[in-house]
Amino acid sequence: MITLTGQQLIAGVPSGAGQNGSIAGINPRTKAPTGYYAQEATAAQIDAAVRAASEAFSETRGYRAVRLAGFLDTVAAEIEALGEQLLHVADEETGLGLPRLTGERGRTTGQLRQFAALLREGSYVEAIIDRALPDRQPAPRPDIRRMLQPIGPVAVFSASNFPFAFAVAGGDTASAFAAGCPVVVKGHPSHPATSELFGRAVSAAVAREGFPAGFFSLIQGREIATGQALVIHPGIQAVGFTGSIRAGRAIYDAAAARPTPIPVYAEMGRVNPMVILPGALAARGTAVADGLVHSVTLGSGQFCTNPGLVFVIDGPQTQAFIAAVTDRMGEAQSGTLLNEYIEEGLGRAVERTIAEANVRSLTGARALEGTAYCYANTVLQTDSASFRANPQLQEEHFGPVTLFVVSTGEDDLLDTLHVLVGNLTATIHAEAAEEQAAAAIISVLREKVGRIIWNGFPTGVEVVYAMQHGGPYPATTAPATTSVGKTAIKRFLRPVAYQDLPDALLPPALQRANPLGIWRIVDDEWTKGSEEA
Amino acid sequence: MITLTGQQLIAGVPSGAGQNGSIAGINPRTKAPTGYYAQEATAAQIDAAVRAASEAFSETRGYRAVRLAGFLDTVAAEIEALGEQLLHVADEETGLGLPRLTGERGRTTGQLRQFAALLREGSYVEAIIDRALPDRQPAPRPDIRRMLQPIGPVAVFSASNFPFAFAVAGGDTASAFAAGCPVVVKGHPSHPATSELFGRAVSAAVAREGFPAGFFSLIQGREIATGQALVIHPGIQAVGFTGSIRAGRAIYDAAAARPTPIPVYAEMGRVNPMVILPGALAARGTAVADGLVHSVTLGSGQFCTNPGLVFVIDGPQTQAFIAAVTDRMGEAQSGTLLNEYIEEGLGRAVERTIAEANVRSLTGARALEGTAYCYANTVLQTDSASFRANPQLQEEHFGPVTLFVVSTGEDDLLDTLHVLVGNLTATIHAEAAEEQAAAAIISVLREKVGRIIWNGFPTGVEVVYAMQHGGPYPATTAPATTSVGKTAIKRFLRPVAYQDLPDALLPPALQRANPLGIWRIVDDEWTKGSEEA
Repeated sequence: MITLTGQQLIAGVPSGAGQNGSIAGINPRTKAPTGYYAQEATAAQIDAAVRAASEAFSETRGYRAVRLAGFLDTVAAEIEALGEQLLHVADEETGLGLPRLTGERGRTTGQLRQFAALLREGSYVEAIIDRALPDRQPAPRPDIRRMLQPIGPVAVFSASNFPFAFAVAGGDTASAFAAGCPVVVKGHPSHPATSELFGRAVSAAVAREGFPAGFFSLIQGREIATGQALVIHPGIQAVGFTGSIRAGRAIYDAAAARPTPIPVYAEMGRVNPMVILPGALAARGTAVADGLVHSVTLGSGQFCTNPGLVFVIDGPQTQAFIAAVTDRMGEAQSGTLLNEYIEEGLGRAVERTIAEANVRSLTGARALEGTAYCYANTVLQTDSASFRANPQLQEEHFGPVTLFVVSTGEDDLLDTLHVLVGNLTATIHAEAAEEQAAAAIISVLREKVGRIIWNGFPTGVEVVYAMQHGGPYPATTAPATTSVGKTAIKRFLRPVAYQDLPDALLPPALQRANPLGIWRIVDDEWTKGSEEA
Repeated sequence: MITLTGQQLIAGVPSGAGQNGSIAGINPRTKAPTGYYAQEATAAQIDAAVRAASEAFSETRGYRAVRLAGFLDTVAAEIEALGEQLLHVADEETGLGLPRLTGERGRTTGQLRQFAALLREGSYVEAIIDRALPDRQPAPRPDIRRMLQPIGPVAVFSASNFPFAFAVAGGDTASAFAAGCPVVVKGHPSHPATSELFGRAVSAAVAREGFPAGFFSLIQGREIATGQALVIHPGIQAVGFTGSIRAGRAIYDAAAARPTPIPVYAEMGRVNPMVILPGALAARGTAVADGLVHSVTLGSGQFCTNPGLVFVIDGPQTQAFIAAVTDRMGEAQSGTLLNEYIEEGLGRAVERTIAEANVRSLTGARALEGTAYCYANTVLQTDSASFRANPQLQEEHFGPVTLFVVSTGEDDLLDTLHVLVGNLTATIHAEAAEEQAAAAIISVLREKVGRIIWNGFPTGVEVVYAMQHGGPYPATTAPATTSVGKTAIKRFLRPVAYQDLPDALLPPALQRANPLGIWRIVDDEWTKGSEEA
């Protein structure tokens, strides 16, 4: 058992006066204090963390990929070594329940190990080599070799809704570490003790692997100023963030206004449109209704990929389908929400939507009295013309809420999809006979999202190489990147080209013998061989 | 011969009242009007251009790579068909001379054809495929397939110093076209007629290839408001820019402040530090001096990669070397500058530097009277302690100017290099016996630049796959990207993942048979085969 102190962890060293800080953990099931606290990080602590990170970077930027891989494996092992304490503390702080948290722990250690595998394979550095042409006229062509290298210290902001997988040692941290970048995490104020436990695990891994202590620091904070101080620190070179549009945009704006602007990889959730074509409705409406209700209510609807918008075409089965979803939503148990801010924010968001013209509430649309933070499963309905006319109807309701948009036909549906702004995902349910109509819909949707799902549901983001968890603004501030899957590492790398360097001075990935045995593009050809071969 | 009208080219159609606009071409050799004019684009013209681009994108985003490749080849052919008129008009407008412009034309058509080759090879879409695991417990894993797709209409700002290769049909435009993105170019006000000729060539290619007319528009402008109107238009999805820090940062700030922020790929030049170690100075000081003077004065010093900072260690040969460079710079002919703004800006920049403490002017440091815009080849000198203390000494002098920074020894040199801000390139001259010292220097420099050159000179950016023409701010606003070389296309692509889609609805790059025969990562293995194989 680790004794929690609520201190910052600055380069492995607990910092600050100890327990009884201003960030008090609340059990969302009881609204009572958990007894866990953290202190708001001071400007001096943030500065010390970033300075230590910069110092660490001067070492770790030279580390071989295999050394970074070993570190990631050790982080995973140290997380597992936290054992039951982690699960119970996190359950107290989030109300997410042990089965979900156990699964999320596996996902978190799994993605650390996936990045370790990526590093051991080694080709992620994208080595491209154009060899010299000494006889070229009118002047010889030099030898030019390019590869990706780490960008420097990264700030990571934990999410509230994934206390493990998008938090202190979550995907942003894992991918920055994999790149060779030190990380300063700001823990989410809803789960200070969970953050501290992860902080201890990562710090232990740093020490055990002999990495410089500044490779990782954890600061805690609930004040906007604390996060801003981290983002504008000149030592920070990039930011990973998962959370709300309001917070993500504020961080983006602060980073863009720096004397030296830096990239902000903010994933800010969305409404994840789903289209259900008439054939699918007729053939398997019940299964789709079951799946939709499951997806909307999973984790109390607190997922970035929650399907918050459902497009249907008016027809014989349509109202019956909406009624079936409404009934199931009304009957499904309402889960605990993470904290009072989510409950309040959700209530305000639904109120605003219902106040718009031509929006009906079919069920729910109210907070539920009781010991826990809780909101009734909610179904809303509007028509396609109203949806097209009113951007407010694209606002996210972060919780178990979905809005049906009823179109008058296929053309009307396509017109309506055209007005969608950026989202993480889009889903289409269709039968084989509807593939032509589906192709036209997909052609529109693919400009709006990072992932398109066929006859499935958007929740449950697979952690695989091909995953794209991103999308056009306002889903993210960086549509060309993902925060899930192995390509997430690219956010924290940048290319450097070497011209005419002696072999011994080149990084191994670019040396002529290809000692790492990685895939490279040499004179326009893909090869794993050495240049002599 | 094309009759120049000075009109905007909006989706292939000349727009506006015709000759005698507010943008008057000036011959920099005579400071007399060329007789060429362009009109300042109006808000309505800019809006029309972007709307046409958005409309075009709804078609071109679905084009196969081979179709885009054919278009790029046709653009190159249409540029060549401009013949002598292009060279003579550009020479009148820029004073760069026919040999240089002939070479730059070849570079411009060459890079268009390089992108065509990249498209025909096809692997640039970075297809990654993770196949379904239907038997996975507790739930099946879906099939997920990811590839890169075009981001949408792009705004390109022409540079003054490369009227062909970084202008209307230059690298930014070529890479955006290659991605499948329509382009609206703002021509540089120093060469309105050159821009118009290129605009006619590209429009001809659009028509000949049957592309939608809105795939390309050319607007002209010298007012800041004109460029801003283009950048903040909601239809624009990304910006390519080459020019000054002041202009680039203004565009970056405008793009970041949009309701929907977009990426700005601004390449803003720099001082390109060069380090000369004592062994190289002793062994081949004369050759290095010759090469340095050639590199500083090439194109009248008007290159983003101009070596504007030279670090040397005080020693027996050092002052003789500086004197040799100074003599050669004094003797070398001073070339014509592109326009009065560059002459004035250069004069002010050198004046500011000379006014700083401990900076000596060894030669030049004055505009040259005469018929042409011209500035004397200039050598400045300071000491390493003053350089470390004064960020002003890292400011760029855009022209034939270099500043020697004299260190007291190797450690002092390393300390000095640590204070450097971002640059496009860094160069080191060293002998084989100095490789250990060089390694330490390279280790510092690689964090500051996009390209490191060994025993060479930074001017002359090879257009090869491995080229990295970029670097940390203030060299660029996007250090993870390049504006030269095939990977420049990545700036205008973003990933989309497809989950469980029927094969027929997938883009060909992701279909199971791999009909394009491209390199893909399938279940973590690189392969060019079909999935059945």
